[in-house]
Amino acid sequence: MIVFKNLPEVDPYQQFQKDYLDAEKANQPLIHAIAISSFNKALNEVESRFVNLKYIEGEEWIFFSNYNSPKAKSFQSHDQISAMFYWSTTNVQIRIKANVKETNKERSDEHFQSRQREKNALAIASNQSQRISSFETVKSKFTETLENANLGKRPDYWGGFSFTPYYFEFWRGSDFRLNHRKAFSKVEDGWESSILEP
Amino acid sequence: MIVFKNLPEVDPYQQFQKDYLDAEKANQPLIHAIAISSFNKALNEVESRFVNLKYIEGEEWIFFSNYNSPKAKSFQSHDQISAMFYWSTTNVQIRIKANVKETNKERSDEHFQSRQREKNALAIASNQSQRISSFETVKSKFTETLENANLGKRPDYWGGFSFTPYYFEFWRGSDFRLNHRKAFSKVEDGWESSILEP
Repeated sequence: MIVFKNLPEVDPYQQFQKDYLDAEKANQPLIHAIAISSFNKALNEVESRFVNLKYIEGEEWIFFSNYNSPKAKSFQSHDQISAMFYWSTTNVQIRIKANVKETNKERSDEHFQSRQREKNALAIASNQSQRISSFETVKSKFTETLENANLGKRPDYWGGFSFTPYYFEFWRGSDFRLNHRKAFSKVEDGWESSILEP
Repeated sequence: MIVFKNLPEVDPYQQFQKDYLDAEKANQPLIHAIAISSFNKALNEVESRFVNLKYIEGEEWIFFSNYNSPKAKSFQSHDQISAMFYWSTTNVQIRIKANVKETNKERSDEHFQSRQREKNALAIASNQSQRISSFETVKSKFTETLENANLGKRPDYWGGFSFTPYYFEFWRGSDFRLNHRKAFSKVEDGWESSILEP
């Protein structure tokens, strides 16, 4: 589930909400899973991973992660990203280009305090994406943190990222690849739409 | 369905095949859908789209597209890409980094000739991702091509892309984000594996 708040009254956001509600009605599994792709300038590498999108508030699309993770380093080196949904139940793909930044600390605190304590223990215990000797070590760090740490206190290295789209493409699959594609680009005074060849 | 041929006898390929077969057994919809992300140097932009992966032949992972499309231009400007599967039925994510190039013409001809004539009509008729006045125009170009074109002759602007992975991460979701993550990096004489923190 994604929580919507104050969605802009413009075509791409209304289209997004309509497609989301259709997919929800169709019982789309993991409807909030979004592929975030970034470019790490130092490594000269494109990288991708799925994250759980939690909120869309105005034009800010928000998810949470570790601020020392590889993705955080990519965002620092190049703040433009792509974000993509694919909902198989309705055969809809939504491709987004956006700029990403950290949310403010209050937003991160608020979300941290709303989470299950086990998830917070994991967030506190894990040096996300660092090498470790074994999964047993992961589990014992987790268990120790769950027992001993203050699970209501957000660590500095964990928080929100917010991205603001400047491009949307809504893609609907059809027979023989005769797909419907509609794009929206942000321009000075709003959004410009176009139909794209399949 | 992905067609496998001469898979390398090394851990990441064996792991991939095992995870693929598990997802297939679980009736994963669109098991061949893979998110391809690229970097367009001229635009300084990361872009993503899903494609259908058709073959894995040795170390070559093959899909087909339009050679004048935006993704083709990105691949020319920066040949490193990321490729990612997520199979919800088994809660497995596979993250790949790779280098991409065009396949040879014979490989493209062979695949083109194996396809439905309607798909070939679309491949011939479409200037992929270009703006067009309406979806009606798309349909009439398609219908005209289906009736009048030689659908067995592959146009020069359509063909295969082959990418060769140099990095894999196998991610298995678990309760409280206590996820299992195992990475493989290509090194001079094989593949080096490591466990990653969740």
